[in-house]
Amino acid sequence: MNLLDLAAVGRLRDEPIGWRHKGLPPDASTVDDLVGRRVPLDGFTSPVAILRGPAVTANLDRYAAFCAERGLAFAPHVKTTMAPQLAAEQARRGAWGFTVATVAQARVLRAFGARRILIAHAVVDPAAVAWLAAEQEHAEISCWVDSPSTVDLLSGHDIPVFAELGAAGGRTGARGLAAATEVVRAVRAAPGLRLAGVGGYEGTFGATRSDDDVAAVRTFLRDLVAFARAVEADTVTAGGSAYPDLVADELSVLDPAVRKVLRSGAYVAHDHGHYAHLSPFPLEPALRVWAVVIATPEPGLALLNAGKRDVSFDLDLPIPLSVLRGHSSLAATGLTVTALNDQHAYLRDPAGTVRVGDWVELGISHPCTTFDRWTALPLVDADDRVTDLIRTFF
Amino acid sequence: MNLLDLAAVGRLRDEPIGWRHKGLPPDASTVDDLVGRRVPLDGFTSPVAILRGPAVTANLDRYAAFCAERGLAFAPHVKTTMAPQLAAEQARRGAWGFTVATVAQARVLRAFGARRILIAHAVVDPAAVAWLAAEQEHAEISCWVDSPSTVDLLSGHDIPVFAELGAAGGRTGARGLAAATEVVRAVRAAPGLRLAGVGGYEGTFGATRSDDDVAAVRTFLRDLVAFARAVEADTVTAGGSAYPDLVADELSVLDPAVRKVLRSGAYVAHDHGHYAHLSPFPLEPALRVWAVVIATPEPGLALLNAGKRDVSFDLDLPIPLSVLRGHSSLAATGLTVTALNDQHAYLRDPAGTVRVGDWVELGISHPCTTFDRWTALPLVDADDRVTDLIRTFF
Repeated sequence: MNLLDLAAVGRLRDEPIGWRHKGLPPDASTVDDLVGRRVPLDGFTSPVAILRGPAVTANLDRYAAFCAERGLAFAPHVKTTMAPQLAAEQARRGAWGFTVATVAQARVLRAFGARRILIAHAVVDPAAVAWLAAEQEHAEISCWVDSPSTVDLLSGHDIPVFAELGAAGGRTGARGLAAATEVVRAVRAAPGLRLAGVGGYEGTFGATRSDDDVAAVRTFLRDLVAFARAVEADTVTAGGSAYPDLVADELSVLDPAVRKVLRSGAYVAHDHGHYAHLSPFPLEPALRVWAVVIATPEPGLALLNAGKRDVSFDLDLPIPLSVLRGHSSLAATGLTVTALNDQHAYLRDPAGTVRVGDWVELGISHPCTTFDRWTALPLVDADDRVTDLIRTFF
Repeated sequence: MNLLDLAAVGRLRDEPIGWRHKGLPPDASTVDDLVGRRVPLDGFTSPVAILRGPAVTANLDRYAAFCAERGLAFAPHVKTTMAPQLAAEQARRGAWGFTVATVAQARVLRAFGARRILIAHAVVDPAAVAWLAAEQEHAEISCWVDSPSTVDLLSGHDIPVFAELGAAGGRTGARGLAAATEVVRAVRAAPGLRLAGVGGYEGTFGATRSDDDVAAVRTFLRDLVAFARAVEADTVTAGGSAYPDLVADELSVLDPAVRKVLRSGAYVAHDHGHYAHLSPFPLEPALRVWAVVIATPEPGLALLNAGKRDVSFDLDLPIPLSVLRGHSSLAATGLTVTALNDQHAYLRDPAGTVRVGDWVELGISHPCTTFDRWTALPLVDADDRVTDLIRTFF
């Protein structure tokens, strides 16, 4: 089965570029016009976000190898990037399916011919349920259920569903084995519905790699294993980008015939903040934002013309990585971003390093809330030269 | 002068809709397919953002009347909505120009034929400066300068510039009258550059309507008046959506021949949070997000499938306004959103009001960071029926 229509993805390269894509050179109207240009100096306007190709490739390869080594099926969470071209790279590396959060995101993947999609949310609004049921003719698209009343809203439709386990204090998911088993019983009794497997999200139970957080995550995963065994599930799914190693460890006790599906998504771009502290693997941060210094109005203060519209700020503020003055690269030593407005970043610069017109390269924390601020990101090589343009659809 | 190409804006209605726009009905492929449908029940998928037409109209009319009464020229900040259709409504109500924050935003307005654009930022990156200079042939597009070194980077180009006043502890802008006057001197000595006027942003100096904040904002505006007089500026600009009344008051002492340009933007949509507390006018919150309850896993906790990808969270979390169960509207009494994940909202519901499948109507705080999460928002009438679809270009 072709997981994605690679020809449809390839045609994105022919879509014109222009004023609908911030940061790209005003004189470029095709992707070919971009290829070979260096970011940011060869005509890009500030701010501009880029993806470092070698880092993306290393991350994609790393996870594909990890899944192969550990016997995991991979359904990467596409909500991070909403970029069909990156999904295609995941498909080429053997992904088993794709994960998304909403029917709207599933529709984007279906526009590119995706054949297996896990919606790792309940789907209960009638128009979304109707779409999901009708789309089964073209693709296998499952969703999650965590209560008998959720099952009732889907009953009568031919839809594969995962019964979701949660735990007290967590997010969605039936609280405990008895409640989760009750959900499975409701699914098996509901006309149309088919139990595709069981699942959960361990990321809710930890925020760090501390012993306590690791123990809490392992406890949840062991409960998920017990649930899978209790209902004789043939597929089990867990896994964000923070604890994939723990998912592999804990699910490994299940029968080899049980399909274990990992759903990590943020790993593709990784970051310089949140996931840099959490990931068990040495991934490479791929996503960066270049912004120009537009003012140095007081000693120690500079302003960049990038803000909340351009970079994530929900977990940490952006991290200055380097400074570009003309063609000279300077160290970002001592530079910190202390606040963002909609279109400005406040850069503290105690040593007075930067000048108006310098470009500052920003690392980000949390790729999910940065990708969704860009409709197109140049993919660059190790020399910062564009090789392709990655489109997103949020 | 036509401030905008209204025919180009009108053609947006003919652009197809589909999987690129989250929340819209999967069976709709044109705007006409939407017109007359009620949001959210007539086929929309969760989450979906809407603009209440009567509220938008009231807010547009209110500011247009205020500017007329107070002798202000209006250059509304379009960065809030990036919606050419709303800019067209501002043009129809007598706007003098449009304000934006970046060259990328100016390019969007130029794609719809905007003839006068104030970029209320410095523009210093070479590709952006080159675009700005070349575009003068088609439109009057100014930018801000706040230091002689900024002027140096623009020198030699035919570009109108505003000299920006700031104040200690603020954002951009020359610190104090002497420094700001030095900037004007540099502009007047620079080949090509033309002093379009002077400006500043008072919103940096207040966060509330407390006496202290109002006094700080008035002090800044008086300094701006002194600056305008000192350099004999013929145009002065100030004004966000928090203190337009203070701007009108303080600038009123200037000679009637001096053009006073207000730049408020957020007023169009207003909100239920930040601006609801700040605005001196009784505006109407127009922007709302509908999201469905996907889980009620513990007593007192419900989860909605809307998150950081759908609503602003930088100033306040979303505010539950009502609950829709089938066709019955219920009060949202006691409901509060306490946290957001990327694609989930945690709804505290101590009384156990909501059930899986209910729709919850969310008010937002800070329209700027909500609009940029949507590519299209249905415009609805007082009965929640769609009259048009507002496109955004971020």
